[in-house]
Order: sequence, then C-alpha cells, then structure tokens
Amino acid sequence: MSVENSLAHLSVEDKVAEGSIPLKSLVFKPKTAKTATPVPIVVVALQSTATPSPLIAQFTGTKEPRLARDELFQSFFKCENAKAFTVAYLLNAESEFHLLIDNQLGHLKDSDVLQLNEKLFITKGEFLKFLSQFESFQKVVDFSQEVSKDAGNSKKPAPATGASSAAIEDAKLIGITVDKSLDFAGWYQQILTKGEMLDYYDVSGCYILRPPSYAIWETIQRWFDDRIKAIGVQNAYFPLFVSSKVLEKEKDHVEGFAPEVAWVTKAGSSDLEEPVAIRPTSETVMYPYYAKWIRSYRDLPLKLNQWNSVVRWEFKHPQPFLRTREFLWQEGHTAHLTQQEAEEEVLQILDFYAGIYEELLAVPIVKGRKTEKERFAGGVFTTTVEGYIPQTGRGIQGATSHHLGQNFSKMFNVNVENPLGPDHPKVNVFQNSWGLSTRVIGVMTMIHSDNKGLVIPPRVSQKQAVVLPVGITKKTTEEQRVHIHSSAKEIESRLKKAGIRAFGDYNDNYTPGWKFSQYELKGVPLRLESGPKDIENNQVTVVRRNDFRRVTVKLNELETRIPELLEELQRDLYLRAKELFDSHRVVVDEWKDFVSNLNRKNVILSPWCGVTECEEDIKDSSAKRDDGEEFEQDEKAPSMGAKSLCIPFEQPELKQGQKCVKCSRPAVQYCMFGRSY
Amino acid sequence: MSVENSLAHLSVEDKVAEGSIPLKSLVFKPKTAKTATPVPIVVVALQSTATPSPLIAQFTGTKEPRLARDELFQSFFKCENAKAFTVAYLLNAESEFHLLIDNQLGHLKDSDVLQLNEKLFITKGEFLKFLSQFESFQKVVDFSQEVSKDAGNSKKPAPATGASSAAIEDAKLIGITVDKSLDFAGWYQQILTKGEMLDYYDVSGCYILRPPSYAIWETIQRWFDDRIKAIGVQNAYFPLFVSSKVLEKEKDHVEGFAPEVAWVTKAGSSDLEEPVAIRPTSETVMYPYYAKWIRSYRDLPLKLNQWNSVVRWEFKHPQPFLRTREFLWQEGHTAHLTQQEAEEEVLQILDFYAGIYEELLAVPIVKGRKTEKERFAGGVFTTTVEGYIPQTGRGIQGATSHHLGQNFSKMFNVNVENPLGPDHPKVNVFQNSWGLSTRVIGVMTMIHSDNKGLVIPPRVSQKQAVVLPVGITKKTTEEQRVHIHSSAKEIESRLKKAGIRAFGDYNDNYTPGWKFSQYELKGVPLRLESGPKDIENNQVTVVRRNDFRRVTVKLNELETRIPELLEELQRDLYLRAKELFDSHRVVVDEWKDFVSNLNRKNVILSPWCGVTECEEDIKDSSAKRDDGEEFEQDEKAPSMGAKSLCIPFEQPELKQGQKCVKCSRPAVQYCMFGRSY
Repeated sequence: MSVENSLAHLSVEDKVAEGSIPLKSLVFKPKTAKTATPVPIVVVALQSTATPSPLIAQFTGTKEPRLARDELFQSFFKCENAKAFTVAYLLNAESEFHLLIDNQLGHLKDSDVLQLNEKLFITKGEFLKFLSQFESFQKVVDFSQEVSKDAGNSKKPAPATGASSAAIEDAKLIGITVDKSLDFAGWYQQILTKGEMLDYYDVSGCYILRPPSYAIWETIQRWFDDRIKAIGVQNAYFPLFVSSKVLEKEKDHVEGFAPEVAWVTKAGSSDLEEPVAIRPTSETVMYPYYAKWIRSYRDLPLKLNQWNSVVRWEFKHPQPFLRTREFLWQEGHTAHLTQQEAEEEVLQILDFYAGIYEELLAVPIVKGRKTEKERFAGGVFTTTVEGYIPQTGRGIQGATSHHLGQNFSKMFNVNVENPLGPDHPKVNVFQNSWGLSTRVIGVMTMIHSDNKGLVIPPRVSQKQAVVLPVGITKKTTEEQRVHIHSSAKEIESRLKKAGIRAFGDYNDNYTPGWKFSQYELKGVPLRLESGPKDIENNQVTVVRRNDFRRVTVKLNELETRIPELLEELQRDLYLRAKELFDSHRVVVDEWKDFVSNLNRKNVILSPWCGVTECEEDIKDSSAKRDDGEEFEQDEKAPSMGAKSLCIPFEQPELKQGQKCVKCSRPAVQYCMFGRSY
Repeated sequence: MSVENSLAHLSVEDKVAEGSIPLKSLVFKPKTAKTATPVPIVVVALQSTATPSPLIAQFTGTKEPRLARDELFQSFFKCENAKAFTVAYLLNAESEFHLLIDNQLGHLKDSDVLQLNEKLFITKGEFLKFLSQFESFQKVVDFSQEVSKDAGNSKKPAPATGASSAAIEDAKLIGITVDKSLDFAGWYQQILTKGEMLDYYDVSGCYILRPPSYAIWETIQRWFDDRIKAIGVQNAYFPLFVSSKVLEKEKDHVEGFAPEVAWVTKAGSSDLEEPVAIRPTSETVMYPYYAKWIRSYRDLPLKLNQWNSVVRWEFKHPQPFLRTREFLWQEGHTAHLTQQEAEEEVLQILDFYAGIYEELLAVPIVKGRKTEKERFAGGVFTTTVEGYIPQTGRGIQGATSHHLGQNFSKMFNVNVENPLGPDHPKVNVFQNSWGLSTRVIGVMTMIHSDNKGLVIPPRVSQKQAVVLPVGITKKTTEEQRVHIHSSAKEIESRLKKAGIRAFGDYNDNYTPGWKFSQYELKGVPLRLESGPKDIENNQVTVVRRNDFRRVTVKLNELETRIPELLEELQRDLYLRAKELFDSHRVVVDEWKDFVSNLNRKNVILSPWCGVTECEEDIKDSSAKRDDGEEFEQDEKAPSMGAKSLCIPFEQPELKQGQKCVKCSRPAVQYCMFGRSY
C-alpha cells in the first residue's frame, strides 16, 4: 500500500455530512546551527485552533520554528510541497520528528469526521489510531490557553497521550528543559515561570510579579529609600493620569514618549470630554507643581521621589522585566539653586544605582555618560550604569540619572527670586531626574541563573537557606525519624533567630532528591542537609546553590558560619560575573577588528570622535545582514548593529593623535559600544 | 441724585462703539444659620468670566452661596429684582456686603467702555472710581485660574486692590481662614492644602500626596506589612490592566464597578484592538492565576497582598482622600482550604485595620458586619471598621475585610483535590479579600485638626518635634545669640539620637511667632522653645500642638520625657475623639426619636429587623426634604437619609419581644445607622 493510500482507504468520503471538522497539518523547521540537521515539527490541529510559533518552540524546546519550505517536504517526507502534505507522509520519514497534536481533538467523539484535505475524510477514532504508530514522537498540547501575544507561555503543555512518553515528559517538566547556552530566550522564560518569579498575563506585555521577585524589589526599595532619605529626599505620590495639555508642554521630551502613551478615553459607558494619558514618566506631571511650590531659594533644594508604575505601550516584542508595557520603578525629581549642586546629586544617585547592582544583585556594571544621541530627551546629560549579559554578548542599560539643567524649569516657570536681590532677574532652578526599574531583576536573573534554575544572590533572596532532614530510609525507626526531623527543626529555628531567612521542608511524601531539585529551581542560596551522620558529628552539610560545593559546618558555629557562607556566595557570584564582563570588554582601536570582536560576544571600547553621524554609521556598519534564511523584525535582535552604551567615566588613556575608530576625525574619548537590549 | 441716576449720568451711550464690553453684576446669598443675617455677595465680572460658586465661597469665607432671590434684592438693595440690579444699587445698602471684582478688568484700558445693562455704558475708569467708595468691602479676585471641577481650589485669591485691605487679606492667607465649625468643607480643603498634605491636580478627582501625607501612608504600610507578613502573607504585584473578558467574569461583582471603570482604547495614535480596563480592584485580575497556581491543598493557604493604586472614575463630587478617582491602597487576597480558617483571617485583618485607626491614627472606630444591602458585591459577608466625623455628625467607612466564600472560586475554578481522596469531588477554595486605602488620612485629618491647622498624631507624623531658639531681641548680643542657637541645636541633636523625628528652625529672618504659626499649621506635635531663661534653668519649654499646653522639661530628662509627651499627646487625641464618638452614638428604640437624633449629629443604634426593604425605608424616611431654599444634588450631602453603617459586633442587649425601630417585624439585632460619607 502506497503512502498516499495509507489513509485514503480509511476515507469515509461517501458518508460525509456537512458536520465534518476541518483539520490542518503544518510542518515547521526550527532554527539550528548550520552544521546540525534540523528536526522538523509536525503540527496537527483543528483548522480553528491558532498555533502560534512561540508556543510550538516552547512545546518542542526548539528555537524560532518557521513554516518549512518545499525542499524540506521533499527531502524529509518525500512529499511534493506543503499543499500536498497530510499525516500520511509521516510514514516516509526516515529520522525523528516532533509531532504536536491539538488537545481540542480530545473533545470530539471517536465517530466525528475530520476533513484532512479536499478529498480525505476520516473519523477521529481511525485518525488517532493511525497516529498512534508515531507515539514516541508525539505530544498532545493545549494551544487554546495561549491568549497573550508574547513569545512565552508559562503553562505546561498537556501530557502526551502515550503513557510512557508522558511520564518522561512530565518528569522533565518539573525542571528547566531548555539549555541556557543554546536557547537563551526560551531558558529565560522557563527560569522565570518555573522558578515562580513571574507569570505571563492575559494582557500582552504585562506580567505578574510573584512573591519571590517582588521580595527582591522590596529589598532594593528599602536599601535605596534609606539612602535617598539620608540625603534629604522625601517620598510623595503624583497621579497616574496626565492631561494632554500638560503632557505635551515639553516638546523634545514628549516626542520620545508620544508613540507609546496609553490613553483613557472612556469611563463606564461615557466618553471622556478630553482623553487623559497614563504617565509614561512624571516630569510633566510634577513640574507645574514645582513651579507653584517653589517661591524662594529657601524652598530649595526640593527633592521628591515616588515608587510607582508607569506605562509605555511598546509595540515591539515584550520581554519579562526588560521590556514591559507597565513596569514598577522609582522616579526621583529634584530642583536645585545651583548647577553644581544638581550635578553632584546626579553622580551621588548613580553611585546608589551602582550599589544596587554590585552590592545587592552581585551584578558588575560600568558607570558612564550617554552620548548626545542616547541621552534623555529634554535633558542636558544622562549618566548610566551599564551591564553585560554574557550569553548574548549584549550590553544592557541598568538605570539612568539625568541632569535636566534649566530646560524644564524654563518651560514650566520653576524659578525663584535671585539671591542677589529683587533687581536681578529670577533664577530658573536646575533639575535632575533619575529612575531605576524592576528591569534590575531581569538582569540579575539572566546573569546568575543556570540550567538547574534560578540563582539568587543571598542579600536579596526572599529565602536564604532551606533546611532538609535527609538519610531517612525504610530501615529508619520512627524514633530515629523524629530525631532527624527535630534536629533539622532545631537548626531552622536557630538560623531564624540569627536573622537568616531560613525555612525547613519536613514533608515525608517527597524524597530529598525531589526537594533538592525544587529548591535549586527556586534558587535558594544554601541548602542545609541534616542526616544521621551529621547529627552524630554535630554538624550540618551545606550545599551552595551557585556551584553545588558541599561544606560541613559544626553546629556550634552555625550562627557565624552560615552568614559567612551567604556572604561568600554573594561575593563569588559577583566575582564570576565581573570576570566575564571584564574579559568581554575589549579595547579595539581599528575598525577592521570591530565587528569580529562584536560577533565574539564582546562589548567594545573604542576611541571615538563624539559625532552623532559617526555613531549612526558605526551602528549601520556593524549590523549583520539578512542571510536570506530568516528575517529579523526586531531591532533588538542579535543581528542588529552596535549602539553606544556609554562613555565610561573610567577611560583608557587616549594616545596622542588617536583617530576615531570609524571615521577620520580625531578621537576625543573612548566610548563603549555593543549590541544591546 | 437718585440711586438710579448715580451711574446713568456717567453713561457714554451716545459714544458707544461696537467694542463695548458686557459686564455682569450678580448677587449671592451664602448659607447661614437661620438666626443669623446673611451678608450678601456682589460679584462684578466680565460677562465672559465664569464665576463658579465654590470659588465665591472660598474668596469670601462663606458657605454654599446661591443666587439671591428677589426678596433679598428688595430688602437689602431696594431694587426690584435681579434683572434690574446694577452696582448703582450698592448705594442703598445699609449694612456690609462682600464685593468681588473680576481681575480681568485690570487688563482693560481706563477708556474701554463697559456695558452694564441695555442702556448703561460707562468707561472702565469711571466705573472703578464709582466702586472705590466701597473699597472696604471689595476684593479683586482671579476666577480664571480655576481649572479643576472640584469645589476646592488651592490657589490664593489675588490680593485686593485697596492697599490696606490687601495687607490684612494676605496676612490672613498664611493661616486657615475658614472656621471648622462653620464651613467644614472649606476648612478641610484649606487644612490639606495649606498644611501641605495634598495639592489639587489638573485632572479632576486626582490629587497629589505631598510628603507629609505620604509619610503617614509609609508608616501605616510598615506597620501593617510587618503584621500581615507575620501571619504568612506575601506581597506581589499584578498588572494595572484587565481585559474586558476577565473583568466581566463575575457578574454580581462587576456590576458594582462597571459604571466607574476607566478604559484605555488608544496607544500613541493607534486604536487598541480590544480596549483594556484599569483595575478598579483586583479580584478578577488575580483569581485566574490562583486557579492556575493552586493545584493541591498543599498550595493552601495562598495569601497575597499588593500595595498599589486603583481607579474608579466616580462622577460624583470628589473629595480629597475620601472620594478620589485614583487612590492608593493595599488589597489582600487569600485562598483557604476551609471556611473556618478563612473566616478567622477576615477578623484578624479587621483587628489590624482597627489597630491602624486606633493605635496609629488615634481614631476610634466601631467594628461590625455590613448588612446584606451594603456588603461587597460577589462576596458572602463584609466586616468593617466605622468611624465618626463630629462636625458633620456623619459616619465614615474606614476599611473592609470580606469573606468571599466560594463564589469567586467557583467562577474562576480555583479548586484542589479533595483531601478525602480522588474519588471525592474537587473542593473549591474559600477566599477573602481586604483593603485599606489612603482614605484613612482624610478621616484622621477631619477628626483631629483645628482652626490653627493640622493636628497629626505623633506616631504617624513625618516630624514629631520642632526646636526653636526664642528670646532673641535687639538687645541680644551676638555671643548670646550664638549660645541660644547652639543650645537649641544641641537639643535637636539629642532628640534625633533618641530616635525622635525632630528638626530645628534657626532662620533669624523670621520671628518666633511666625514660626509658631507655620508649625502649628503643619501640625508638628511638639514645639520646643529654648530661650535664655530655659538655658539658665537647664530646661526647655514644650508646647503641645493639640491643646497648646506648655510644659517645662529638664534637659537631663529630655530623652525620656519627650517620648512620653508624644505618647501622652497621642493618647489624649484618641480619648478626645472617643469621647465625641461615644457621646454621639445613641441608642434609639422608637422611630419618633430617630430623625431628631440624627439631626443632632448623632449616629444611631437601633433594634432592627434585618430586612433590606426596611433599611431602604429608614433611609428614605430620614432624608431631609428640600425646603425650597436649596437643592442638594449630591446624595452624600448632609440632607440625605441614614444608611446602615454596620451591625456592631458589640451589641446592646435586645429586649424580649423588641420590635424593629421602623417596621412591625421583630428586631433581630441592633444596627448602627447614620448619615455617611
């Protein structure tokens, strides 16, 4: 029997009523290294089921699946083209493939008739019987719950129908199934959702911050809040809404945000007389009131900060923490009598931002100033802390502190009597604004976490240590079991008293191994195992999450050693990340070495002329070209060109007569370039 | 010369060009006690100037001015009616009146011609000359800056033209110019804006929380957050936006919010495919994810809380803190395996809410349960803390803690395997939600503050004590001055070291008297005066903000006495407020005594049948009728009927056979009724 007939003889064409249900069979090719052979993905779904490729990628653990071209149909399935394809051709496959089956089929009766193509009608019962021969490749999946347009999806695929494959699949699904070095984006998504940091939400570009990530934010809030209050900043709260009139007052400024502003036009069923915007940032919300409140130089400095959320309705591909339509941040807005005082504060705040990254999140950064092209629209200069993501070799802006000069104060009439006297003209105040967002959590996660799950620096981790009773076997007596448990509980209680965020897991229904995986996935920094041997030796076995190194700690040293171990782990995370950043930040003086270094996942320090056109030229000249196979729609994709990240405060020495790396102008400083987020 | 001719002879009718500017002359009558003689308000403004009555009220320090009826024109100005009135009739007045002059007149040339009525045309120069004879009554005011639709306006009226009256006016404007007992609404607004708690914002119904009020909120946050974390609640953050599909899932629930939901329909210049709502509360935002996260009873209880802002686009008259379109709050949402556990938590949280009022804000409350009519839509029962505002005699809902039963869990499929085994049906979880908003700050302010300004309980006040050097006169030598200053600074520094939120004011450009007023206005609980005598006697003079009682404190007792004084002040505020609440909460068993007691600014405890129709009847029957003089548009106005506030947990004993206060049914409990916010 020919392949073509393998199904045809089952066709119930003659009996077909109008009630037959159209089915589609699609073939995708995932992205793979040029040398590797791609494993095709066959998707069998009801015609009415949307089958977004990001979901397909997730279900199969592959990268960027695209609809296959005819070559693949010919070479792999010996089928002329996509149009001719039915599942009958699966019989021709000589090597493995993925087979994803729409779980909506499960809702049909065995006697329901499926329409495979113009001529082929077959009952669902027969159809599944036919497919069952490919059971080892197949997975039944749920496309229907994917409501967000995000690439990601946090839901588990439904288990496969075949019992054996399901078991394997399910076992795997507890942990991370994507390799950080192979599919960074897929890994990042799994890390966040399975680690319970975040969940995807049914409004695209919005995410839920679950307790483990929100707790990190709270630690950052407390740390930063204490420091800014110590320099005289007070917290306040300004409204979520801005009238269009006020929003549009500072032209340069609003231009940067206008395309992303969300507008409220209705309340209940009534149209608003005038739409109101949701703040994308609060300069224009706040400064009319600064003008009102600041009457005399004695009202200066005015230093206000707010912890709030802002909305920027990006149409680009969203990414958890890094690019989201709503995000949490703090925004500080200060007004000063003198430029010098304002400028000093800009740098003071930047040091605090550096502290959040380096001291709390164990993330190394480079401090510097943004170029003219990249500075905050409407301001005078922008300072920044820039991070580095080793897997992608891309730079990432960490947080920015802007000096606004008198631009806004002139626009909003924020001025005071001249201290020289009423005969002198009024003085417009000098302003700063500075902001740090929940993006920091994304950067931290990308840098430290691994294929086992999250790795969270102890200083910010909601939980710092988990205590587990171990060594309980079938031979353990009840008395021994109770003793092991109570020893572990005693350790937990001592740690808590010592101010360590510890907890225990005494559930005997799970094996220690299962628990190890769980808490590795969730990134608990230290695991303390207390078993019979440990008890005998008055010790506890400690395993570090970052490198799984085992240490034994004498129980009489518990309160001193555990805090030390946490601090050591914190430092080691930082040093490892710093080593990676340092070794991938290379000095390149000549253009010929620029792109090759970029492609080796480096960020680059180059002598530069400081001219914006040259900066744009560098970006264009360092972009990867479309290779015909794929088309990058996202300007943030790895193929994009190098942007200026910052002009680092710490500069390599510029040689006499040094030319710009790109053009013939003399270099005026080193600039850090890189592909970036 | 007759009154009618006093202006007519000045008329330039024959010379009138088309360029004459129409003027209006309006007369208002403010609300006053029946026994008092009202002082009419004459408003002279360009026809094109809007002259909203709330502004008129503010400029004149009067209450609810309404357009005067003909009687008043006749009796006061001997003018037939409003139509015939011009400023000429001011000459007929035999007692004082207010005269408000539109400052837009200032922009006209003296030669510009004003049209007073059909026949009367007069140059601006002559017109003002005529008005100058009423200089002592007049004030030039700025109607044009009023942009918000709020009754309130935080801007100072422009000073009057007459130099002498302006000076007085300006001096007054530093402090509160409205009497708390005469014009409570006007007083409340001044207290908040002049005390710098809050400012009005250019989007109606939204307000700016300035540092002194936000600091109170931060104290409440810390206090409550510590307590809920101790009972296992974790903080999280869910998005601002809700899709309409999800919002509308729970019908009863959404009905309550639908008319007030704000909708985002545009981003940049693009229309959204589907509008998204801004959360009015987060039940429907969160529970689909509860359904996803809760798989087993081991995932229970799930207790999440978020500190966020929500939007309810009320179309009623907004009021700072009490009724605002955006407000800050916390919302806790918990899921439990058993009803009992859930119900226990509802009461535990209610106790925390009571603690915020009584322990932090020194505000007495009554705990109880809401009636069927007043409970949270979609829930099973609502518990509440109810406060009382003595000046208006109205009750105010303080915060609510709801038991939702299984209503939402059934709708959102939040369920777990039955602990009895897989053969038993799944169990829907029992849920609670509970919220407390920045409304608390409004309640606190209304209760404690006075005609000198804010009074803020020490435990929540951003600043607790101000230290002032006093007794510096012209005779004081520079050496003495320095000594007085350094003594005060030493006191400030010792207080700060003792953990007291103290500050000093050493500015010699202001008199101590001016500073006293300032810090009384801002509600700093203790003022410490250190003068030569104090220094001599090793003491400091302490003045309590609430009652201006003076106490001397020996310097060697500073660190113990000042905290004691703060606590005493805190307690005294509470006791005074409690006495007022207790004496205005009266038991009324018979309907005949109900309304009269209500009108005496009481809330009422009455035996009640518990039937909703009866509750509605009580409300209708206790509403004041329109007396023909005025018409109340706002259902929250003082004339409205009594609503049920709560069924207090602490109940008077019900007599055998006691009937309902209103109907013939037997009473089942005492219910607390009152007019309310």
